[in-house]
Amino acid sequence: MSSEFGKNIKVSVFGQSHSKAIGVVVDGLPVGEKIDMVKLQAFMNRRKPSDGIYSTKRNEPDQVEVLSGLVAGVTCGAPFAAIIENKDQRSQDYKEIKDVPRPGHSDYPACVKYKGFNDVAGGGHFSGRLTAPLCIAGGLALQILERKGISIGAHIVKIGKAEASLYDAVNLTADNFDGPLLTEEMEAEIMAAAEDNDSIGGVIECAITGMPAGIGDPMFDGVENVLAKALFGIPAVKGLEFGAGFKVASMRGSENNDPYRVIDGQVKAVNNNAGGILGGITSGMPIIFRLAIKPTPSIGKEQESVSLSEMKDATLEVKGRHDSCIVPRAVPVVEAVAALCMLDLLA
Amino acid sequence: MSSEFGKNIKVSVFGQSHSKAIGVVVDGLPVGEKIDMVKLQAFMNRRKPSDGIYSTKRNEPDQVEVLSGLVAGVTCGAPFAAIIENKDQRSQDYKEIKDVPRPGHSDYPACVKYKGFNDVAGGGHFSGRLTAPLCIAGGLALQILERKGISIGAHIVKIGKAEASLYDAVNLTADNFDGPLLTEEMEAEIMAAAEDNDSIGGVIECAITGMPAGIGDPMFDGVENVLAKALFGIPAVKGLEFGAGFKVASMRGSENNDPYRVIDGQVKAVNNNAGGILGGITSGMPIIFRLAIKPTPSIGKEQESVSLSEMKDATLEVKGRHDSCIVPRAVPVVEAVAALCMLDLLA
Amino acid sequence: MSSEFGKNIKVSVFGQSHSKAIGVVVDGLPVGEKIDMVKLQAFMNRRKPSDGIYSTKRNEPDQVEVLSGLVAGVTCGAPFAAIIENKDQRSQDYKEIKDVPRPGHSDYPACVKYKGFNDVAGGGHFSGRLTAPLCIAGGLALQILERKGISIGAHIVKIGKAEASLYDAVNLTADNFDGPLLTEEMEAEIMAAAEDNDSIGGVIECAITGMPAGIGDPMFDGVENVLAKALFGIPAVKGLEFGAGFKVASMRGSENNDPYRVIDGQVKAVNNNAGGILGGITSGMPIIFRLAIKPTPSIGKEQESVSLSEMKDATLEVKGRHDSCIVPRAVPVVEAVAALCMLDLLA
Amino acid sequence: MSSEFGKNIKVSVFGQSHSKAIGVVVDGLPVGEKIDMVKLQAFMNRRKPSDGIYSTKRNEPDQVEVLSGLVAGVTCGAPFAAIIENKDQRSQDYKEIKDVPRPGHSDYPACVKYKGFNDVAGGGHFSGRLTAPLCIAGGLALQILERKGISIGAHIVKIGKAEASLYDAVNLTADNFDGPLLTEEMEAEIMAAAEDNDSIGGVIECAITGMPAGIGDPMFDGVENVLAKALFGIPAVKGLEFGAGFKVASMRGSENNDPYRVIDGQVKAVNNNAGGILGGITSGMPIIFRLAIKPTPSIGKEQESVSLSEMKDATLEVKGRHDSCIVPRAVPVVEAVAALCMLDLLA
Repeated sequence: MSSEFGKNIKVSVFGQSHSKAIGVVVDGLPVGEKIDMVKLQAFMNRRKPSDGIYSTKRNEPDQVEVLSGLVAGVTCGAPFAAIIENKDQRSQDYKEIKDVPRPGHSDYPACVKYKGFNDVAGGGHFSGRLTAPLCIAGGLALQILERKGISIGAHIVKIGKAEASLYDAVNLTADNFDGPLLTEEMEAEIMAAAEDNDSIGGVIECAITGMPAGIGDPMFDGVENVLAKALFGIPAVKGLEFGAGFKVASMRGSENNDPYRVIDGQVKAVNNNAGGILGGITSGMPIIFRLAIKPTPSIGKEQESVSLSEMKDATLEVKGRHDSCIVPRAVPVVEAVAALCMLDLLA
Repeated sequence: MSSEFGKNIKVSVFGQSHSKAIGVVVDGLPVGEKIDMVKLQAFMNRRKPSDGIYSTKRNEPDQVEVLSGLVAGVTCGAPFAAIIENKDQRSQDYKEIKDVPRPGHSDYPACVKYKGFNDVAGGGHFSGRLTAPLCIAGGLALQILERKGISIGAHIVKIGKAEASLYDAVNLTADNFDGPLLTEEMEAEIMAAAEDNDSIGGVIECAITGMPAGIGDPMFDGVENVLAKALFGIPAVKGLEFGAGFKVASMRGSENNDPYRVIDGQVKAVNNNAGGILGGITSGMPIIFRLAIKPTPSIGKEQESVSLSEMKDATLEVKGRHDSCIVPRAVPVVEAVAALCMLDLLA
Repeated sequence: MSSEFGKNIKVSVFGQSHSKAIGVVVDGLPVGEKIDMVKLQAFMNRRKPSDGIYSTKRNEPDQVEVLSGLVAGVTCGAPFAAIIENKDQRSQDYKEIKDVPRPGHSDYPACVKYKGFNDVAGGGHFSGRLTAPLCIAGGLALQILERKGISIGAHIVKIGKAEASLYDAVNLTADNFDGPLLTEEMEAEIMAAAEDNDSIGGVIECAITGMPAGIGDPMFDGVENVLAKALFGIPAVKGLEFGAGFKVASMRGSENNDPYRVIDGQVKAVNNNAGGILGGITSGMPIIFRLAIKPTPSIGKEQESVSLSEMKDATLEVKGRHDSCIVPRAVPVVEAVAALCMLDLLA
Repeated sequence: MSSEFGKNIKVSVFGQSHSKAIGVVVDGLPVGEKIDMVKLQAFMNRRKPSDGIYSTKRNEPDQVEVLSGLVAGVTCGAPFAAIIENKDQRSQDYKEIKDVPRPGHSDYPACVKYKGFNDVAGGGHFSGRLTAPLCIAGGLALQILERKGISIGAHIVKIGKAEASLYDAVNLTADNFDGPLLTEEMEAEIMAAAEDNDSIGGVIECAITGMPAGIGDPMFDGVENVLAKALFGIPAVKGLEFGAGFKVASMRGSENNDPYRVIDGQVKAVNNNAGGILGGITSGMPIIFRLAIKPTPSIGKEQESVSLSEMKDATLEVKGRHDSCIVPRAVPVVEAVAALCMLDLLA
């Protein structure tokens, strides 16, 4: 087991970077939900390589082909399955990697685990390309959640040294989810990395509004556990924090505790250091978390590695097409995974 | 489902702060493993309230009583079950909380979820006391792992403003796991909080040495996913980062990628920003992660809350016995959970 | 993993025949359910050895001790845990079995699986005694289901050559669940076996009334799948059939299909060969299944076996106290497991 | 969750009878296994409608298209995914069924469960057509098991009144798995049913040779539990028995217990009433089980049903193409499911 998550709604991802197709099966979606395929494709396009400086030159239309699960565009209770054909494959770019593993990539651990049988072309099953089927599944979930009054938005709050403001964790609404993807400073950080044949990391913040209080379970099936298990499945995620996150370490309880007040006849917290989750259960406040995204390990710059066949030191210049910053393309993926988790928790 | 984790080794925790007993069932332990009960009890004692300033005045001997799973002290394949009797219960301390939820605690979300039927005495099933059975299970796992050459250690790297050095993520050995629990500066931070009837948070770092390369699965069952799902089950954890963690956001790929070299005939990385995990799979380097621990929400200081019965604003002074800093007592709990995850991944 | 079942309601059983205690954890019970402990104990007593001819002479009061999960006798959302202390242990009876495995028992396969570390005393974790904690959990479930208008009853329809009428699968109500446990012919079969130092098998039929239509999932999580996985966990079960069961093999579709009619404004089937389940989903008719229970393998009669230490043929006369027929004591166990499955399916 | 089974090897089936495609994802296959696609297609063809009398006239080439999981025909650790396009769809045949449910079919319970949104065309996700992807997955498993010396064979032992001999449960080898699919008497039973616009049921027996002793877990993850959960996912299965099965009800322990002898230096049972499984664990003897297969509910004969829209009695003549006996086509499906379970248990 590896490429599946979810309890009531099971999401199973398959494919390799250069296999015939990549795809997803979602088992357990609510029935009677109309899926807007134009909207879904528009969501998918947010993950696609842009014309900008930061992303791979691989050109994939990423056309979603639904195989099952819908009748006249409406969920019917049968597992939803959809695929994307891989079209622009250039496996020859990856021959050297089989012998000389890329530092910071899964190449070496995967080779040990799979005894050399793993697909190295384009990173195989470890490729960021596998986030495309995640977006298909998540795009569906977002449409279904929207009808329940639940909105999910993510934005970039850091690239290199460039930072942007966090969401207002208390007064946030879905309206706050629009805005430019990158500030000028962020673009400059990416461009500088690209010019050095290098890559750069960042932080994505995600917010979920409209989740009712009382969702989630204590201990190991809480909202944080469910999100954490799934979010660390997004390639390059190395950190996750909820609400005030690592800042809690230097806080006093009196400062970190979010006081309750009765507002409009309802219990509300006047602060949201908890990120909307207490004891694993939603408090009714917006759910807020941030993810640390490492710089993509595939860089053009020369790096020190080893030759596995000769067991001696070697150097490596990764060829092929690579993102200088994957953070922008990861934004809809984070929304997708968060949406699938919320739908699962509500099921 | 809520209080269970693990795939091959299932850990099921039960009990409430003031129930007759708390306990744990561990299903799937390897057979033929001799359990040293004296060593286990010594490990348990690290979690107990100390005589120091920082912890609850509740006095529990935390004597482990094994109910099943051993024959003459050796694991026999049957589920291991053990309990700890709750002795020093003072349920009367918690009456007010039923109506006026403690800010920052699970009281309010739990009340919504469980329609008021949840046990509020001592936090019920949400109490930090439930980490005691986790330590029983983890204490077993640590003994079994040790025979496989795998060691786990955790230490406090931050309390309030006081910081300590991180582990050397490359050259770390089990010998590094000994050392004083708190620096003088940390003790001063805790004492200052205690004097204010307040509490203080911190950061715990954990390292795992001896895990072979090639363990873990890609995407959603990787080492990070498995650890994350379990670690967010420890009360008060609000953040988790592996290796360089949130620092990756401002790093270049050339800086973050850990170069490989052949050392003593083996592939080794000369740096460990990855925290021993790439693509969800162990690289053979030490596994390193850090947890943000929030200040315990139960504080003596007056706080703003609401009366649920009257639906109006209220103030609250939490009575009873509370830790001013739970970070020191959480250290063995982190080791315990990490040990159970490793044993599960190796099964 | 081995001794657990359930998806939303996890039932985890622990203990060995001669361990300090046996017990159960039930995670996920609905909250606010009052548990009648007198009624629960009465249910437990149906599983206890009777004064009659057919059962073990082991004398265990089987007093249920609740450790957690209730507040003032009402389910509170925390995992329910309860134990039964083992009192009347005579481990010395089982020494020979370690070397000479009982034919028809788990002794030999368990010895291979657990490399000889398994607890052989009384069958260890494989003992029928482990059905006692199943009855605790199931007794709770039965009380909760009853409030939802769902009743479960089981009866013996065959012992040796003695047979009894099946339930009326169409017009069955909870009233039909009362009646004598054994017919005179069945008692005669058991007595004859007992006199021969032998044992005898049987068939138990179970019916569930009041389950609404539309419960269960297609393919692998249907009502049949869920029941099957759990029911084969009852020791000695070797066969399971739903509705017409194996008789369908000689039936025509026109005969086996249950015709629908509108009765009192509701869709009803006028026959119930389906046993209340079509495509894995409840039809609204009573759920009906039958279990083949093998004769208990522990018999006083001399049997052919082998000495594992000497790897040569040997003979065995099982000493100790054994049931000549376990079928009567299995009746409440079947009800218990069925109840837990129904509660899980409804969750 | 519904259309998935397996713990270490997850098999996820998707598709509807008349969706664009049907398919399967298998996550967790061992790596380095060469898959013979010609052999796989030959296995698939055993499930296809024959030219004979008993099967549907629907004409599907059932060409397996592999999407991912293989590199140069060898398993690479990434999830295996394959699809079959649906070509010969005639959805118009099924319009009436939406209103007038077929007796004995899932139509009515599915309509209740899915609030009328379920796909009725060809039975939707409940169609026997979904056994084709199961055969893809199982065909792979059979090839992998064969290299481990494990063989699986199934045969028909009953159609209507016509019976055939059971396997020799003790001395069985893979050579016994060849033989004619149907006896003359069985063909006559099917022909008689077909001539009456009716259908007929049967019993399939399956045997697994070469499984080592000591595989499986006690209680709820035993070999019987694992097989039972999966096998009841095959449409039309209404009963399952292991070894002597329901015959144990009239047996004495002395008769049912399989005596051990040392044969060629190994512990062997001289009988196999246990069907190769004791206490949920393999004994090293062949695993033997039998499945009751109900007559397909879709028959041309007029039947009594109801109109759901008018809530009144109605009659139904099922149009379209149907099998008069699905038992022959179910034989490879049983082998496929058994193979997947064995591979999972061995993982």
